[in-house]
Amino acid sequence: MVQKVAVIGAGPSGLSSIKACLDEGLEPTCFESSDDIGGLWRIKEKPEPGRANIYESVVINSSKEMMAFSDFPPPADFPNNMHHSEVLQYLRLYSQTFRLLQHIHFQTTVLSLRQRPDFAATGQWEVETEQRGGQRETRVFDAVMVCAGHFTRPHLPLRDFTGFESFHGKYFHSWEYRSAEGLRGKRVLVIGVGNSGGDIAVEISSAAERVYLSTRSGAWIVGRLGPGGLPGDLIGTSRMDMIIFKLFPGWINRKLEKAVNKTLDHRLYGLKPKHGFFAQIPLVNDGLPARIISGRVVVKPNVKEFIGSSVVFDDGSTVEKVDVVVFATGYNYSFPFLPPALQAKSGYRLHLYKHVFPPALARPTLAVVGFIHAFGAINPMAEMQARWAARVFKGLITLPSEETMTKDIQRETALMHKRFVCSERNPLQVVHLPYLDSLAEQVGARPNLAWLFLTDPRLALEVFMGPSTPYQYRLTGPGRWAEARRAILTQWDRVVQPFRTRVVAEPETRPYSKLSIMLVFSGAALLGCLCYCKHPGSSVFPVLSQFRSPH
Amino acid sequence: MVQKVAVIGAGPSGLSSIKACLDEGLEPTCFESSDDIGGLWRIKEKPEPGRANIYESVVINSSKEMMAFSDFPPPADFPNNMHHSEVLQYLRLYSQTFRLLQHIHFQTTVLSLRQRPDFAATGQWEVETEQRGGQRETRVFDAVMVCAGHFTRPHLPLRDFTGFESFHGKYFHSWEYRSAEGLRGKRVLVIGVGNSGGDIAVEISSAAERVYLSTRSGAWIVGRLGPGGLPGDLIGTSRMDMIIFKLFPGWINRKLEKAVNKTLDHRLYGLKPKHGFFAQIPLVNDGLPARIISGRVVVKPNVKEFIGSSVVFDDGSTVEKVDVVVFATGYNYSFPFLPPALQAKSGYRLHLYKHVFPPALARPTLAVVGFIHAFGAINPMAEMQARWAARVFKGLITLPSEETMTKDIQRETALMHKRFVCSERNPLQVVHLPYLDSLAEQVGARPNLAWLFLTDPRLALEVFMGPSTPYQYRLTGPGRWAEARRAILTQWDRVVQPFRTRVVAEPETRPYSKLSIMLVFSGAALLGCLCYCKHPGSSVFPVLSQFRSPH
Repeated sequence: MVQKVAVIGAGPSGLSSIKACLDEGLEPTCFESSDDIGGLWRIKEKPEPGRANIYESVVINSSKEMMAFSDFPPPADFPNNMHHSEVLQYLRLYSQTFRLLQHIHFQTTVLSLRQRPDFAATGQWEVETEQRGGQRETRVFDAVMVCAGHFTRPHLPLRDFTGFESFHGKYFHSWEYRSAEGLRGKRVLVIGVGNSGGDIAVEISSAAERVYLSTRSGAWIVGRLGPGGLPGDLIGTSRMDMIIFKLFPGWINRKLEKAVNKTLDHRLYGLKPKHGFFAQIPLVNDGLPARIISGRVVVKPNVKEFIGSSVVFDDGSTVEKVDVVVFATGYNYSFPFLPPALQAKSGYRLHLYKHVFPPALARPTLAVVGFIHAFGAINPMAEMQARWAARVFKGLITLPSEETMTKDIQRETALMHKRFVCSERNPLQVVHLPYLDSLAEQVGARPNLAWLFLTDPRLALEVFMGPSTPYQYRLTGPGRWAEARRAILTQWDRVVQPFRTRVVAEPETRPYSKLSIMLVFSGAALLGCLCYCKHPGSSVFPVLSQFRSPH
Repeated sequence: MVQKVAVIGAGPSGLSSIKACLDEGLEPTCFESSDDIGGLWRIKEKPEPGRANIYESVVINSSKEMMAFSDFPPPADFPNNMHHSEVLQYLRLYSQTFRLLQHIHFQTTVLSLRQRPDFAATGQWEVETEQRGGQRETRVFDAVMVCAGHFTRPHLPLRDFTGFESFHGKYFHSWEYRSAEGLRGKRVLVIGVGNSGGDIAVEISSAAERVYLSTRSGAWIVGRLGPGGLPGDLIGTSRMDMIIFKLFPGWINRKLEKAVNKTLDHRLYGLKPKHGFFAQIPLVNDGLPARIISGRVVVKPNVKEFIGSSVVFDDGSTVEKVDVVVFATGYNYSFPFLPPALQAKSGYRLHLYKHVFPPALARPTLAVVGFIHAFGAINPMAEMQARWAARVFKGLITLPSEETMTKDIQRETALMHKRFVCSERNPLQVVHLPYLDSLAEQVGARPNLAWLFLTDPRLALEVFMGPSTPYQYRLTGPGRWAEARRAILTQWDRVVQPFRTRVVAEPETRPYSKLSIMLVFSGAALLGCLCYCKHPGSSVFPVLSQFRSPH
């Protein structure tokens, strides 16, 4: 019977893992190598090897209601897209509210993780730690949650660039970037058009003489703002939208690409990728287009070679007198804690059942939490993984056989590679809501929409047509939260609140009208009833199956 | 007979005035107090009293094809919205191409401008200048063009803010702003939401702890990008659009406000002004909405009072620990050169016929060039003013009687105040295309669309449906330029060229399809013929009358 759980890392995933353990009556002990919580979101004076790092101007891509933990709505007056300092503040509030800090051992690094000799019987682990003083200790735990983060090892592919040794300017990885200071008047080449590359190019461009942004495959760009300037991730992400997308994927994809190009012709801007809009997490950037049209940022193809301070691109064009090169080339993922046997890969991803459990273990007492990517916030997914893992540890949920899990991993990996552009640097991607639903299904916390429509239409409507905020997973089942209903019905108020700094008039914030509500309500209710008895398929996109009642 | 013309100032207006004189066979002598051309567009190491000043990141609001001089298209590879350094480069190319520099006396300040005793007979002026060495000189000129700029005297209304004397932080006018350096981690209050206020708030916000943007009356915000990311000022500004607007002003206004709010709900963002979209030049800013949704920039109402480092706003809210206050409060306009008698005002504007000629003068030998505002680039308007003035000087165009001119000024001022929000800081505004047309009418350079549709349909179509680029005023009449046709037919190529830094595929750049061309062509031609004989009304918005043939 699992009691003591080691949690490695006190970032967002670690914190929600501690809480998940406490909620299930387990005893978490969290080891954090630094002296504070927050992980990625705690900005460091200087980048610290082995730790994630951010720059001063970082603003989170997801809006606060979408990146929240399911039972802890962000303060109403917090901005919708938080600055990193506000994300950290949110994490502190979360830790204080649920008394998580007392379970954390700071300045304690996990050196190794070993199965005990009697693992097959006990499922126990030996966790060897080292405190900053050098004092080593080995403790036994019934289970382990690995929440060590994965933006910790910058990928700096100098060797991939012919002649780079002849470049004598300054260069660094985006991981080392802090601000544009010191780049005034410089000619800067940014390699890679991921979110870091885009942000850094835009920020530098107001100080630099010119910024060149090199991209091999281009990217789809979206801003943080949706219709009317509402947070973009609150619109078009409802369960209703998911059903429509499930029913007409091709049509929606074409419609979206058309809409995106209507705002910004990706061909004209030299950014159009070969892959479709949904095949990769898009570049979230609000400033890039304006920096391109003003020539401050110049989009360039892949770098072919360096000749001293000159850079030659694949199209034969050359940029001369480059002073600085920023490698926004992503990260290498590794889990030194994991015993080698558990580091097996499936495609580029780790060989983990639903991205959490290694199937090969005799006992399911090790969970990887937070190593998950989707076009949607990571926090709610990591939290749901933790809730699931805690219940598996407790024996309340039984995992399938190793063979079944392995087959599932292979099938999901195949589907993932078919649907998404995966690579060593982008090893995995899931579809946000269906992934959450599939885990919630296991936990027993998945909202029963059909039942809601019959018992609480107002709530059902918001859950069905409104943004799929994480509070939906606290309405029912284990971990039910009495305030969840209110949190959902007041979510738009928390969205509007931070705008009320100069009140002009009561703003219209709901993205749908009363009429559309009435129209959709009947249709949705009908659909709900129709699906009531439908047995879920084993699709990775089981949106329709969300309607059946829990077993 | 006018021969010698004094041109005061070598900014964009001064340069096009020199050229206008040369084109008419006059002898221009330009006095520039600094040691270089460019005026506003030459960035100074430190702000120089009495001279316009810009900050390092300034990018022009108008796109290059719309801000060009009518016979000098910008280089194809220049970005569409130029950085100030590129605008200056464009002005240098212009000066070199037309050999303007040899007519400029640098480091020579104009001290006074006096009518000669025999002015009534000769219309001559005594211009007293001082060289940097202190050497004074008085010369006689047959005419004078005042191109001294009007962003030279910052308005710093400290007394308007109760208790400001108790604020001991740093403060400065936007005129003094150069970059965000030194504002890292500061709490900054920007007062005024004009283009400077918006730009500065956005730029500072990536370094400052927080930026508060205070606005009394709000503003409409538009970005530089139009549909598909094309330069916004190239779309919806055609002669056809002007006709539609002329026919359905209310409908277009509502339609536009609706469209703007669909992108950014101005009520939600606390920016909605009381005035309609066309009543004031909107705030052109690409970054502000994203800075507001991320809480980096907080929109606040008008400042009520300062209490030490705390600022109280009209709504009673308070912001504490303000470190820096930036006054983006506009400029005072004055023309010290003008004899007091000529400084009479009409409303807030100067009492000038078509914003150029003082009616009271016995002889029309003094012209103010470039003191003009519209939702459109100043350069082409200033250039047209100069072309008109040069021909008036030469006696080729006779101005109406003083009484008629005064009546016209009063009528136009009344219309202006009815249509636009004017104030001491925003003394005047004209409607871009109609104003250009009305001057071109005088010069005899206004394109004859009806004739074009009959003789050169392809060109006519681009002139009628395409952006109203200044080249249109070089197709016919005095100052006709042989290359004008080609410049118009190749303008979209110059728009697309700077984007070709990473070619994905040939981009679709024309904002209208072949079908719409065919459809509109017939209608336009018909309309052209209908209007062929129509005598122009004396409207300030005489778009329809553009179709008649020149007399």
